[in-house]
Amino acid sequence: MMDYMPQTSVMNFLNEVSGSFPSAISLASGRPSDRFFNRLDPQALLNALVVYERYSAGDHGGGQVHSQLLQYGRTAGIISEIVAQQVRSDEGVPARTDRVLITSGCQEALAVCLPALCPEPSDVLLVCNPTYVGTTGAAAATRVAVSALRNSELGIAEAVEFAVLQLCRQGRRARALYLIPDFDNPTGRVLGTPARRDILQVCDRHRIIVLEDNPYGQFRYEGDAIPPMAALDEAGSVIYLSTFSKTLAPSLRVGAAILPETIFGDAGACRVLWEDLVQRKSFVTLNTSQITQAIVAGLLIEQGVSLRDWIRPALDWYRTNRDVMLCQLNRVFSPFADQIRWNRPCGGFFLTLDLPFRFGAESVDECARRDNVIVMPMSFFALDNSQDYRIRLAFSAVTPEQIRTSVTGLGRYVARRLGRELPSLVGG
Amino acid sequence: MMDYMPQTSVMNFLNEVSGSFPSAISLASGRPSDRFFNRLDPQALLNALVVYERYSAGDHGGGQVHSQLLQYGRTAGIISEIVAQQVRSDEGVPARTDRVLITSGCQEALAVCLPALCPEPSDVLLVCNPTYVGTTGAAAATRVAVSALRNSELGIAEAVEFAVLQLCRQGRRARALYLIPDFDNPTGRVLGTPARRDILQVCDRHRIIVLEDNPYGQFRYEGDAIPPMAALDEAGSVIYLSTFSKTLAPSLRVGAAILPETIFGDAGACRVLWEDLVQRKSFVTLNTSQITQAIVAGLLIEQGVSLRDWIRPALDWYRTNRDVMLCQLNRVFSPFADQIRWNRPCGGFFLTLDLPFRFGAESVDECARRDNVIVMPMSFFALDNSQDYRIRLAFSAVTPEQIRTSVTGLGRYVARRLGRELPSLVGG
Repeated sequence: MMDYMPQTSVMNFLNEVSGSFPSAISLASGRPSDRFFNRLDPQALLNALVVYERYSAGDHGGGQVHSQLLQYGRTAGIISEIVAQQVRSDEGVPARTDRVLITSGCQEALAVCLPALCPEPSDVLLVCNPTYVGTTGAAAATRVAVSALRNSELGIAEAVEFAVLQLCRQGRRARALYLIPDFDNPTGRVLGTPARRDILQVCDRHRIIVLEDNPYGQFRYEGDAIPPMAALDEAGSVIYLSTFSKTLAPSLRVGAAILPETIFGDAGACRVLWEDLVQRKSFVTLNTSQITQAIVAGLLIEQGVSLRDWIRPALDWYRTNRDVMLCQLNRVFSPFADQIRWNRPCGGFFLTLDLPFRFGAESVDECARRDNVIVMPMSFFALDNSQDYRIRLAFSAVTPEQIRTSVTGLGRYVARRLGRELPSLVGG
Repeated sequence: MMDYMPQTSVMNFLNEVSGSFPSAISLASGRPSDRFFNRLDPQALLNALVVYERYSAGDHGGGQVHSQLLQYGRTAGIISEIVAQQVRSDEGVPARTDRVLITSGCQEALAVCLPALCPEPSDVLLVCNPTYVGTTGAAAATRVAVSALRNSELGIAEAVEFAVLQLCRQGRRARALYLIPDFDNPTGRVLGTPARRDILQVCDRHRIIVLEDNPYGQFRYEGDAIPPMAALDEAGSVIYLSTFSKTLAPSLRVGAAILPETIFGDAGACRVLWEDLVQRKSFVTLNTSQITQAIVAGLLIEQGVSLRDWIRPALDWYRTNRDVMLCQLNRVFSPFADQIRWNRPCGGFFLTLDLPFRFGAESVDECARRDNVIVMPMSFFALDNSQDYRIRLAFSAVTPEQIRTSVTGLGRYVARRLGRELPSLVGG
């Protein structure tokens, strides 16, 4: 366990690399694929807006709705009911309308929740190591201390227990735990139901709020869905973060923080937290654009308040991409099977590749320049040097052909680093 | 001078009062008038989006533009050039494209700038007293210490000088000064050019950054415009905050923070600050919705990149409202001329009324219940009890008839509080 050190912007670095080597294929970007955005052409956005306005006019009366949409509005958002319904239906989370705080993307939910959950200088946010940089960044920006859980065979619950004790000795207190249980960014890891229950139990015992971030949960390529921690939560310890960036489009900048009915059994404490979050949001962005909120709600209404059918083409595309990537990794790296390993994620946008050598910023550069592929060093997401030998590969924003070509390029790079030759079968 | 104490949400209180007395007229809300929003019907928003896409396609090529709009995008925004042009043309600020950070409304600019300018616990933000609650709120949310300038006949520059000395004795340092030089919220006050120059000189000497917030500057009802402080700034001490909430619509949630070319003559320091602000913004909202950015840019392009013609009907409306309010204040309060005073703002949405008695939350309630008018106690914007005898009256979101009726209602309330009778001429 070590404390968080602010890092230079990962995005900036990658943008610079992309700018310098425009012909390199990027396996670094975890963006959703553009190829389904044609369903959101300008006319479709307008239609969605009008659909929401008609729906909303039931309550408020015709022409007034659009005028109200253009004004300052409710801080907690205007589409909580529809979002609650969608999250219940698609993600199995028992969301209550009056506990859904609409945010300007999930990033704002983090920027609002972290300082609210960790108000004292001795309060600490626990994170996995590696973890999503937006979370450690939001913590740094709001002056919230971060501690990384140690990586142990015994799992996260045990690591939380250990961290609580260590912090206690320093006069500090773990207040929140940030987790992506489904298809983690950056690792692609999924937590099973027993692990989720264990974590909930430990967090309940120590009064630690779990911030369950679930941007990828709907992108499962095989096997049965595992209930989100918010659905397993009996104590009132999970704040669930939802987003439309991966299902609809990032540019809508609409997400949500969904509170449980009580905080550790205390309904009053939950009301207090809710009001604190709403007030903090008002001081960050006043309210989320009601135009983009209305577009999201309109699209949801058109889809029967479920995105299951909407995301199917993307789901199939991502599954194919994952399969192509796994297959090509197998082809390219089978000669190095003793030295190179990777996981087989059953959903999400990412997988982790373990290398027998350090892979840092200079490696990104060389790999882009000589082998035409940009990958993400796992160390960019790490809070210590434990991730220096790993990289993250994203398969969401590329085509199968690009995956084949770029994984082959990565193979050439690895072979060169290892002073070995890449078998000719993958030389193309 | 005293330190900021977090206050309960003003908005919540006013919403509750409005909810309890729905027939009361609100002079509390500083919203822009809805009556010109018909120019922004759904079709107009779509047109603006398409206008921007056609404009942008020049650089990027046809169909790709919309697809890029829907993706994650540049943290600093995609419409900096157009906004820089508009701010130069309409507000006389020498904005450079590469120094325009697009934000999710001006509130986010505050949430990003305050902790960047005041990174150390000993760093202090100076504010006028009273001041905009969103600023003290953003400071509280980002754990930035605030000190209120003392109100003295000698003016703001002298008060800054005094505050710097006092803070220095406490081992603290003033790092930034928040100001609305044009038609201040909440007071309606305008700073003349000499006062602006004095403040700039003092701030330059003490290396204090001026955060010049200018939401109302374009709403001047008479007299010549006074150059914004950013236009008078020779040292590199002004960050200029711009917004489209009052000129176009609040719901677009698009604003901007515009940096000078140097920070106190140091171009390198300015680059460092710029990068810090961009990184902080990425941790608050990643980027501002590119859909609403594109709508703003499209509207600006349609208007020849100036909002002067666009705002004219609203300007005339607000001017009339101000005149009606001043006239009705004169009629209603002439019998109390010795006890009640108000300013005559030459622009903006607000004026200040000085009363001979305390006006707090319970007064708001009584005034709403018995006299059908909701006003804003100035103490809601204050950092001490110096504003307990004042109220803020907003004339932007009401009709002339509502102004006449509500000011008369306020007159009845005041007469009752003073144990006097309201002359019958205004009894209607």
